[in-house]
Amino acid sequence: MSVVLPTALLTDQYELTMVRAALAAGTADRRSVFELFPRRLPDGRRYGVVAGVGRALDAIERFRFDEEAIDFLRGRDVVDDATAEWLAGYRFSGDVWGYPEGEIYFPGSPLVVVEGGFAEAVLLETVLLSIYNHDCAIASAASRMTAVAEGRPCIEMGSRRTQERSAVAAARAAWVAGFTATSNLEAGRRWDIPTRGTAAHSFTLLHDSEADAFRAQLAALGEETTLLVDTYDVEQAIRTGVELTSGRLGAVRLDSGDLPVMARNVRALLDSLGATSTRIIVTSDLDEWNIAALASAPVDGYGVGTALVTGSGHPTSGFVYKLVARATDADPASPLVPVAKKSTDKISVGGRKHALRRLDADGVAEAEVIGVGAPPQGDANDRPLLVELVRGGEVVGAEPLDAARERHLRSRSELPLEALKMSRGEPAIETLWLEADGDAQANPFQH
Amino acid sequence: MSVVLPTALLTDQYELTMVRAALAAGTADRRSVFELFPRRLPDGRRYGVVAGVGRALDAIERFRFDEEAIDFLRGRDVVDDATAEWLAGYRFSGDVWGYPEGEIYFPGSPLVVVEGGFAEAVLLETVLLSIYNHDCAIASAASRMTAVAEGRPCIEMGSRRTQERSAVAAARAAWVAGFTATSNLEAGRRWDIPTRGTAAHSFTLLHDSEADAFRAQLAALGEETTLLVDTYDVEQAIRTGVELTSGRLGAVRLDSGDLPVMARNVRALLDSLGATSTRIIVTSDLDEWNIAALASAPVDGYGVGTALVTGSGHPTSGFVYKLVARATDADPASPLVPVAKKSTDKISVGGRKHALRRLDADGVAEAEVIGVGAPPQGDANDRPLLVELVRGGEVVGAEPLDAARERHLRSRSELPLEALKMSRGEPAIETLWLEADGDAQANPFQH
Repeated sequence: MSVVLPTALLTDQYELTMVRAALAAGTADRRSVFELFPRRLPDGRRYGVVAGVGRALDAIERFRFDEEAIDFLRGRDVVDDATAEWLAGYRFSGDVWGYPEGEIYFPGSPLVVVEGGFAEAVLLETVLLSIYNHDCAIASAASRMTAVAEGRPCIEMGSRRTQERSAVAAARAAWVAGFTATSNLEAGRRWDIPTRGTAAHSFTLLHDSEADAFRAQLAALGEETTLLVDTYDVEQAIRTGVELTSGRLGAVRLDSGDLPVMARNVRALLDSLGATSTRIIVTSDLDEWNIAALASAPVDGYGVGTALVTGSGHPTSGFVYKLVARATDADPASPLVPVAKKSTDKISVGGRKHALRRLDADGVAEAEVIGVGAPPQGDANDRPLLVELVRGGEVVGAEPLDAARERHLRSRSELPLEALKMSRGEPAIETLWLEADGDAQANPFQH
Repeated sequence: MSVVLPTALLTDQYELTMVRAALAAGTADRRSVFELFPRRLPDGRRYGVVAGVGRALDAIERFRFDEEAIDFLRGRDVVDDATAEWLAGYRFSGDVWGYPEGEIYFPGSPLVVVEGGFAEAVLLETVLLSIYNHDCAIASAASRMTAVAEGRPCIEMGSRRTQERSAVAAARAAWVAGFTATSNLEAGRRWDIPTRGTAAHSFTLLHDSEADAFRAQLAALGEETTLLVDTYDVEQAIRTGVELTSGRLGAVRLDSGDLPVMARNVRALLDSLGATSTRIIVTSDLDEWNIAALASAPVDGYGVGTALVTGSGHPTSGFVYKLVARATDADPASPLVPVAKKSTDKISVGGRKHALRRLDADGVAEAEVIGVGAPPQGDANDRPLLVELVRGGEVVGAEPLDAARERHLRSRSELPLEALKMSRGEPAIETLWLEADGDAQANPFQH
């Protein structure tokens, strides 16, 4: 499974035709700055979570055009011979800055800043957007779930509800946002995430009786295992499980029914049978609101599937990748000129962005401060948000996934309390836009 | 890019622990029938579209546990030594029947029927669900779009809005459902789908003037290319494009604004400039309702992104994979016994399913007829829906992707007219459930 796939064709055709036309026109090497950013948060959300950074860095490193890819592009006349030759030697040689993985973001946050020649930088557009738009959507939903679960473990179980490779990325994003384990084995192997899983209803149905099925599972997985108790009659199943383990059963799983009521009944039954340490795991169509509704129920863990891998109503993040500045000729020393499309409904702001998180004296986040063309002046408490990810084509921002996970919990804990409300709301903090001279400008993304 | 990845870890852990427990209990080889089916259509939808069959067959063929996968599973104690040995020799040896790709489905349709030993069949659960849940969601949305586009070409452009490998699968599913091309290059290479793409706003912004950018694009891609005309002023851009091509410009693309109004103004302008053959392509946040709203506008093609790759509000299909029958011992000759979980909110029906589409004398679909335990009696016009996909472990149901695309258009054209309404509705035809003796039974999925 450790085969490394090239990523260069995970790309929209227009990037290749632009490279072709720019090479012919002599404009391909103009130094350029592209930025990946959201114009807004998903409707009603109060913050977003950065995820996919490590995957994006992998994708940049693997972005090479092999012979088969070039033959395909040439055969379809997507590129000409000169472009094919240029692609054969392609390797991103520029710089990338970005919000580190796990960080919080808001409307307009410059999540990724790519600087390089136009052609080399425009080619990364689709693959970066694909990774960020997906992974941040999952992490943003996951963070709301782990926040409202208030320390109870959340297990990612959504693989079956999303495309098979998205499933692996989703498990990774959920881990960044505080999930404690995944059912997805490839995510366990590839990203060293803890994995969980015991048995489905089919296992009970396979056997001649529920007791036979439980005996088989206990023999193989031990008394600490989790028995699925709602195939036939929940009460009977629990009695059987407790009896077979002399009260030492690890956990029971409920996958249907009115969970708050059932959890209370099941807890009372387990306690009455002496199985006071047996945990209750619930897994039926959970989302952040259902988790909130279970806060006072005697539940020991949540398994979350569909709502997680579909971003709980927002399966994509709405990021765009826009040229914001470029040189007027191919001289690497030429100054950058801000550029922006004129549009009233699809805004972008010319000029390279810088960003910091403004914190008050108690360390609570107050504002996202975005400097256009120059880094904004920060106070002592302020935290710069952009870190170096790629320098001269070399990845310098790789880090263990646990670092992202810890950063997320830390950054989320800085937010004002209302950020964690489940109700629809505005972004949890305001965004201040500053000109290069430090003067404030109107928020371009506020309607 | 033609590296073939094994698929065996694209799996939930519980499938492996069930195999482990069943091997130890001596129940792993009980002949079993699993079915993949929807309990309902996404809310308000009138039909669903089968896609992903070819990908699923590939995944079954590549479902092998290599040494690295087995080391991982053994290292985490997901499996024991006996199970590890069994996995090393794993190769699905059973039979698979299913709805062919492109076919229409309804609530309860048995899209896939897998027969084999319990252990070998349960292992396919997650990867089959991942593929079908994703690909059918995309194809079902895509079919509504191509239906309402009424012959105008639809181009899939959503790669950037979904995970990078989902993007490839989405382009494939859209093609099955009648899209005419994709922007995704890997989908072009892997599945031989026509690809499209010319230039983004960044290409115009890169150059010193819009005219310079257009000249560069026309020089590289020819006069038949599509110019993006809304970077600055649409009218001026069109005048420039027409002038540079002496009226022979292939197409203009509008990516913002009030499209029905703009399309009319742009058509009038093009015609007044003598560019009567220049086509108008629109690409801004289209979905099936926006496409319907453009039906009377002078538009020549639609580029669809976000709404397509997110299933237009329904990013997953809600399929489940359930054990419906199994033998009482490991003897391959033992009869199958129907099994089903007892549940009021998550229904499945015991017994192997068969299915046909009932057509009236005019060839219009009237009903989905599902036989439980035996094939239903069909009339002369009725069409059996299940085809053989895998026989004794060998894939026998592979077909060119174009066959699926043609089948979809054919099957959709059989539906009653109201099936193609964009408004929320009930499934376009009813489903009849028949017992093995031919007696009708109540529809188990109707509440």
